[in-house]
Amino acid sequence: MKNTFGNNISITLFGESHGEAIGAILDGLPAGFEIDLDKLNWEMEKRKAKGKLSTRRHEADQVHFVSGFFEGKTTGTPLTILIENTNTRSQDYAQLKYRLRPGHADLAAFEKYNGYQDYRGGGHFSGRLTAPIVAAGAICRQILEAKGVNLATHIQSLHGISDDNFASNLDDLAKQMADLNQKEFPVLNMEASEKMVAEIEQASVNLDSVGGVLQTIVTGFPAGVGEPFFDSIESTISHLMFSIPAVKGISFGEGFGFANLYGSQANDPIIVQDGKIQTQTNRNGGINGGISNGMPIVFQTCIKPTPSIYQKQHSVNYQTKEEVILEIKGRHDPAIIHRARAVVDALCAFGLLDLWMSHQATTSFEA
Amino acid sequence: MKNTFGNNISITLFGESHGEAIGAILDGLPAGFEIDLDKLNWEMEKRKAKGKLSTRRHEADQVHFVSGFFEGKTTGTPLTILIENTNTRSQDYAQLKYRLRPGHADLAAFEKYNGYQDYRGGGHFSGRLTAPIVAAGAICRQILEAKGVNLATHIQSLHGISDDNFASNLDDLAKQMADLNQKEFPVLNMEASEKMVAEIEQASVNLDSVGGVLQTIVTGFPAGVGEPFFDSIESTISHLMFSIPAVKGISFGEGFGFANLYGSQANDPIIVQDGKIQTQTNRNGGINGGISNGMPIVFQTCIKPTPSIYQKQHSVNYQTKEEVILEIKGRHDPAIIHRARAVVDALCAFGLLDLWMSHQATTSFEA
Amino acid sequence: MKNTFGNNISITLFGESHGEAIGAILDGLPAGFEIDLDKLNWEMEKRKAKGKLSTRRHEADQVHFVSGFFEGKTTGTPLTILIENTNTRSQDYAQLKYRLRPGHADLAAFEKYNGYQDYRGGGHFSGRLTAPIVAAGAICRQILEAKGVNLATHIQSLHGISDDNFASNLDDLAKQMADLNQKEFPVLNMEASEKMVAEIEQASVNLDSVGGVLQTIVTGFPAGVGEPFFDSIESTISHLMFSIPAVKGISFGEGFGFANLYGSQANDPIIVQDGKIQTQTNRNGGINGGISNGMPIVFQTCIKPTPSIYQKQHSVNYQTKEEVILEIKGRHDPAIIHRARAVVDALCAFGLLDLWMSHQATTSFEA
Amino acid sequence: MKNTFGNNISITLFGESHGEAIGAILDGLPAGFEIDLDKLNWEMEKRKAKGKLSTRRHEADQVHFVSGFFEGKTTGTPLTILIENTNTRSQDYAQLKYRLRPGHADLAAFEKYNGYQDYRGGGHFSGRLTAPIVAAGAICRQILEAKGVNLATHIQSLHGISDDNFASNLDDLAKQMADLNQKEFPVLNMEASEKMVAEIEQASVNLDSVGGVLQTIVTGFPAGVGEPFFDSIESTISHLMFSIPAVKGISFGEGFGFANLYGSQANDPIIVQDGKIQTQTNRNGGINGGISNGMPIVFQTCIKPTPSIYQKQHSVNYQTKEEVILEIKGRHDPAIIHRARAVVDALCAFGLLDLWMSHQATTSFEA
Repeated sequence: MKNTFGNNISITLFGESHGEAIGAILDGLPAGFEIDLDKLNWEMEKRKAKGKLSTRRHEADQVHFVSGFFEGKTTGTPLTILIENTNTRSQDYAQLKYRLRPGHADLAAFEKYNGYQDYRGGGHFSGRLTAPIVAAGAICRQILEAKGVNLATHIQSLHGISDDNFASNLDDLAKQMADLNQKEFPVLNMEASEKMVAEIEQASVNLDSVGGVLQTIVTGFPAGVGEPFFDSIESTISHLMFSIPAVKGISFGEGFGFANLYGSQANDPIIVQDGKIQTQTNRNGGINGGISNGMPIVFQTCIKPTPSIYQKQHSVNYQTKEEVILEIKGRHDPAIIHRARAVVDALCAFGLLDLWMSHQATTSFEA
Repeated sequence: MKNTFGNNISITLFGESHGEAIGAILDGLPAGFEIDLDKLNWEMEKRKAKGKLSTRRHEADQVHFVSGFFEGKTTGTPLTILIENTNTRSQDYAQLKYRLRPGHADLAAFEKYNGYQDYRGGGHFSGRLTAPIVAAGAICRQILEAKGVNLATHIQSLHGISDDNFASNLDDLAKQMADLNQKEFPVLNMEASEKMVAEIEQASVNLDSVGGVLQTIVTGFPAGVGEPFFDSIESTISHLMFSIPAVKGISFGEGFGFANLYGSQANDPIIVQDGKIQTQTNRNGGINGGISNGMPIVFQTCIKPTPSIYQKQHSVNYQTKEEVILEIKGRHDPAIIHRARAVVDALCAFGLLDLWMSHQATTSFEA
Repeated sequence: MKNTFGNNISITLFGESHGEAIGAILDGLPAGFEIDLDKLNWEMEKRKAKGKLSTRRHEADQVHFVSGFFEGKTTGTPLTILIENTNTRSQDYAQLKYRLRPGHADLAAFEKYNGYQDYRGGGHFSGRLTAPIVAAGAICRQILEAKGVNLATHIQSLHGISDDNFASNLDDLAKQMADLNQKEFPVLNMEASEKMVAEIEQASVNLDSVGGVLQTIVTGFPAGVGEPFFDSIESTISHLMFSIPAVKGISFGEGFGFANLYGSQANDPIIVQDGKIQTQTNRNGGINGGISNGMPIVFQTCIKPTPSIYQKQHSVNYQTKEEVILEIKGRHDPAIIHRARAVVDALCAFGLLDLWMSHQATTSFEA
Repeated sequence: MKNTFGNNISITLFGESHGEAIGAILDGLPAGFEIDLDKLNWEMEKRKAKGKLSTRRHEADQVHFVSGFFEGKTTGTPLTILIENTNTRSQDYAQLKYRLRPGHADLAAFEKYNGYQDYRGGGHFSGRLTAPIVAAGAICRQILEAKGVNLATHIQSLHGISDDNFASNLDDLAKQMADLNQKEFPVLNMEASEKMVAEIEQASVNLDSVGGVLQTIVTGFPAGVGEPFFDSIESTISHLMFSIPAVKGISFGEGFGFANLYGSQANDPIIVQDGKIQTQTNRNGGINGGISNGMPIVFQTCIKPTPSIYQKQHSVNYQTKEEVILEIKGRHDPAIIHRARAVVDALCAFGLLDLWMSHQATTSFEA
């Protein structure tokens, strides 16, 4: 349904980069849930542009609830998130209407909307739309946390620089996750972190941009959630992740690494530990047959380099069909991967909560 | 909706490996479409187990239309595909009910269904369920082909052995695609093909299995189809691909390779060629902002090694919670990637047809 | 989604009157539910044509589970219901392809499917499609009954002949409901019942047909289920009821009688009885604001007279556009209202179970 | 999906009576459609409270587009409608939180939301939510009108006072419809109109309220749109109508009158007129088998008397479970049927547009 997704809980997204506001509606929330606004704002903070690593368009991104929130708690009716666009400089884009930006949706959008789209700053395609996603996901995340489910995301690699792996020991992992969730630049290894920052700064100096791979881990999620085919956990999570602008790949557990393994290596041996059936390794990323098996859920999301760069690029004027040399003005990010991490967390929380709700719907009626 | 997917055209899947039949319902087909049964059966043939590369469970996989098909044509009402299970040897699995097979859905299924699932041969989780998917997708594919849309998939890599790339020249590409679509083992380069076959045979000798990466290309698909967020082409295709058992990763265009590129390399320059605006390169795989840009759509799907292997494996008896050494009997595939290719083609055709239909729904009402 | 409906539990319908089989897929069932086949078959029996009141096309309507049913219980995966068409006399209809039957879907179907529809016996539009609906609903009904929810339907009126009202006293009501559920011709008052039967027989003698109004009551359904707007109980139930061929009206509680009441009469006073808040009267039929209030749910469904009658009728040949005098052969029902009652019960059970499941999905996450 | 409805075009509803704003998101609109704001505001005007017949809460109901509207035209991305609540007097309701108003959703809402709902003025259940529905539907209506589809609604009856019937002659009907669409109190017969107004005024004097039946007619809608079962026109329209607070019944064509007809009377004879196949009468209200047959679509919607009345009523305090005598303060309508007419028109336009879009999606792929 285009800008709406979800079964028992749903999100509907709206707005444009240079319109007056952007937002989202979260429907299907349990009533009486007390939203921790500080925690929500911290998620917003992680997504915010700031410092040298990001665009100089600094938006307050003040989350405002128009409905569904009463006396500090959810009402159970649609919760509407509204975020004003305050720092728009639309004149930067006026020259760009027909001048297609390579790597952006401009050409595709012209073909789809016949030129009626709001082209300013990418319009509805803008990464700004991820701000209400983060707010909505932050609420879902709090609901999951109240049930003992935690999640964290780090930059697994950025332009060839790799971070450490997550610990396999659950206690160490919990500590890593807590640390990550406090960081604005989410890297486990400090040295790797500094190298990545330097790489982004260098890209900025070069009027260029870089991408990378995010890795997300979820602990405490119950076994038996998800469906065999079209509502598999992988289907649901991937559907959501590819809704994020700039995501071009996703993999679960070993991911594309499976292509180089034998079955005898790829299968996670099953053991009993502390009286609980689990797997010895977790190459399948906590999911078999589309369903959670009780191990941590692990997936990787590839973020392509930001398409907006300051270098001159070859392009075309859509109206005149003449080739042009494009110099994008405006304010851009040499990397968005560290900001995208908040969006990945948000949609992961949303997707898992929805699947879990569906699970509850059915199991409530079991004998 | 669990086993149903799609908006304007939908597929509903049912059946178990050792039940009497499996099948699918395809709803929303245009009326009066003449199904080419030879072409449909050729798609079924590609998915079929045969020879040394596959399981010795050889099923006729005779596609039977129970409804929606009248006098050789679609009626426009639900088309029901039924495929009998003829060659079941359920006794092979009786010992397995509580003995969880590593890499399979067994543990997850027990957690989800409390032991009430049909465990024989994987039950509803079985790869056999992909047979009706192939039949349904073959019909969608014919509808697309009638509109000038073609698709083909090759094994891009198998356990370290790589195939050639698709040609960038459209004429050469068309020839490659036509050739691939005639092959049961879909590899462009003959030498690579032989090496891959040898690798699978060796894995079989070792009582082991291998996986790999499929790459799919679609030509002739119109620009402007897809949606900015939750109905992006990537979201739709990935949702469907992760419905296929054994898929653990998907990427579009350069995919995870984007992580090592600069923005200046990742952006496809825009040019005019033959009076048509297009991109010079196609690193974005024909999709920007979730919407087709008129270039070929390209994506990669990672297939993990078949989890059923003949080696002894460490496992657990779900009922007794005792550790066991498992030797899987039954009949298994040392590789399924060449058969999975027919399923990938089928779901790709289904997904693109559905998105295109949605596009038509809206644009029909434009001024 | 055309032939699929439902959120947490869904039904997908397929088949044609003179095809080899008709059926339905019920997805989202709890695993391990033991289906009482005798009770299911009794529901089928109520819908069956028999005696002088119905068509002489007598179908066995043997329900067969192709999937989702294992060792006497639901597996939790899609349950496929298949019912063979055994007693087809398609030659009766051959003359009818282009001769549009008044009151039937023939003209509309031609416009929709361009003549590719299976026209024999109404094809996919046939009342036969309600047989798998009854089977599917019977399972939902058993799940509801296991939770203390009961339902019953009587013929409130038939061509001017009225039945008694349901008792307002819950004990008397329970007895009425139990009695009704044992009757094939569901009328509370014996005298009214005999008059109605005589009326149908007279209509049959006149080569004509009659319709009427069914009234359904549901007890034990919990308060607080349903949604304020698009998933209101009324929206869901009416959506399902209008899926039944021949239904042309639905109303809840006082229904169209509200048009003649003052607000002071229409409002049900709220009282406390046996420590429970409830309403003194039940003019609103157990639903306020789309949500159950704990009182019995009551609604009326209007069934139009069977359109197939043996009288000569004015019509048109679709192909030649010439006016014709039509004499419908085949085997028809002078009334279907008593059989439709089983369909109404089935879809009512399905709809309420789905809404209740959605309720559980959300409330499971309340603090 | 709770507060979202539709397939190819969807509406999502949000807000509460005494929150800061209410609104709706309309997604799936064609791009480049020029919205006639005067016509849209005229629809808003019809729904507005004014004069002696309505509540003294007079809201500006100024429609504001937050997104999806650019340079006077739709962009094709989600169009967000926001309407501020300006004239709230929440203190009127403070005493009412636990004092359940008979005929309202109060009791049901407490059961559903555990007391966390915004209770002020009915919160999310308020009739105010129909204001954004009217705005959204007004846009759909303009799209239909541009394709030659017209609709109109009159008060067929109000507390026993009946209006004239619609003309069967299409020219006379067109004139009637045009006239109706210009009236704020939509009655064909002037004398009946005056009697109805007097009846409402008298109810107001009596501190009471009245309801009635609306009849809607749609001309110019193409034949062949709709689906045999769950997406029948009747299912879709009824689903939407029962989303309107106070609607308790709906019927199509002859509606409940069918219960007193013989089949020979109920069947519309088929004829050829002006070279077009149509029916001589239109007892089936333009729909057979769930699909439009090319005749005007006709349906009746029953609106119960406004539950808010100034008389003393028996009720209960939800918290204390003590019986109370309730005197509702606040500002209420002695009748809402004339205002509800704008909501019925709006949702009718929305539903028919969505069904037509789905039709186009499929038929675009017919040979």
